[in-house]
Amino acid sequence: MIKNFSYTNYLTRNKNGVVTNYANRGMGLENDINLANEYYRIKDIAYIYKKPTPIKLVKVDYKIGKIKEAYFQTPSTTDYNGIYNGKYVDFEAKETNSKTSFSLSNIHEHQIKHLINVMNKGAISFIIVRFNKLGETYFLSTKMLEQFIKNNKRKSIPLSFFKTYGTIIKIKYNPRIDYIETINNIYFGGNNHDEKKK
Amino acid sequence: MIKNFSYTNYLTRNKNGVVTNYANRGMGLENDINLANEYYRIKDIAYIYKKPTPIKLVKVDYKIGKIKEAYFQTPSTTDYNGIYNGKYVDFEAKETNSKTSFSLSNIHEHQIKHLINVMNKGAISFIIVRFNKLGETYFLSTKMLEQFIKNNKRKSIPLSFFKTYGTIIKIKYNPRIDYIETINNIYFGGNNHDEKKK
Repeated sequence: MIKNFSYTNYLTRNKNGVVTNYANRGMGLENDINLANEYYRIKDIAYIYKKPTPIKLVKVDYKIGKIKEAYFQTPSTTDYNGIYNGKYVDFEAKETNSKTSFSLSNIHEHQIKHLINVMNKGAISFIIVRFNKLGETYFLSTKMLEQFIKNNKRKSIPLSFFKTYGTIIKIKYNPRIDYIETINNIYFGGNNHDEKKK
Repeated sequence: MIKNFSYTNYLTRNKNGVVTNYANRGMGLENDINLANEYYRIKDIAYIYKKPTPIKLVKVDYKIGKIKEAYFQTPSTTDYNGIYNGKYVDFEAKETNSKTSFSLSNIHEHQIKHLINVMNKGAISFIIVRFNKLGETYFLSTKMLEQFIKNNKRKSIPLSFFKTYGTIIKIKYNPRIDYIETINNIYFGGNNHDEKKK
């Protein structure tokens, strides 16, 4: 989520003078997933971590371990990976403010390629997309994502596609985003729209 | 490999005035593993990546995407993870200049815990240790590492333990460190000292 810079507060004004806190952009879903991952670790359910954002170091004072100049880099893979129930899990999570579709420009092409590569090696590979203004969060398997890209010229996935081929992740008390429950339903015995338990 | 700062050159002098290039400390093994991972990806054999070093951002100019003050953080997991043959793979790689043993102080306790946690979930979990002065690189499964820690009070693993319970990774032409071959032998049909194919 390199574009979100969710580490620190970052305030900016639009043309009408409205202050937007970019720290909250992305923070909602990212935070929910981080808390879910922590919950899974504490309960010994799954070990899934967010990868650090890659940084290009330019000036470093190694005596005091201080980085004086560095730049954000584009991640070569997805944000999250780990293990659940013996399976390698890999996914990207994104939010959109659109009410009707999710633009594929939100995910780098090499990230989609990565998701497909690991799927082909037997991973549980998917994206999580939250439609902020609808309050809906979807799980979409890479298989369905790949299908969409193959069969469509348009560069954004309509909400209806998520509704038909994805799975809504219900908001719970704890963890708020229980995406492992969704994985359980889809890959380990539940109902699903695409692939059954491998 | 947060201690190695292998990103840039870092020269220092010891008591005798000998210059050590810390960029090369760690670079040998790390570089070999990165090249092996690239080889595996190109050949569609495995998708294993080095995780970026986590950085704590203090001052950032978001207008130009420049980090002005930041510090290295201790990684919460291991350096490498990914997927091979449907299995989640997770490991830490370290070098030592000792000719007789590998000090456990080289690996954080929470990293060892992480290796054990993912092993218990079905991961192929291990460490790679290179004895620089012997020119020998060993694969040691987390199961054997855990055994050692349980049964020994000493804080360093003697070379003899690696010889008995680990597997030497032979230096090849390409990739130089073919640790997937070692995994193949141990987990997918070959001979080994500890666990057979799961």
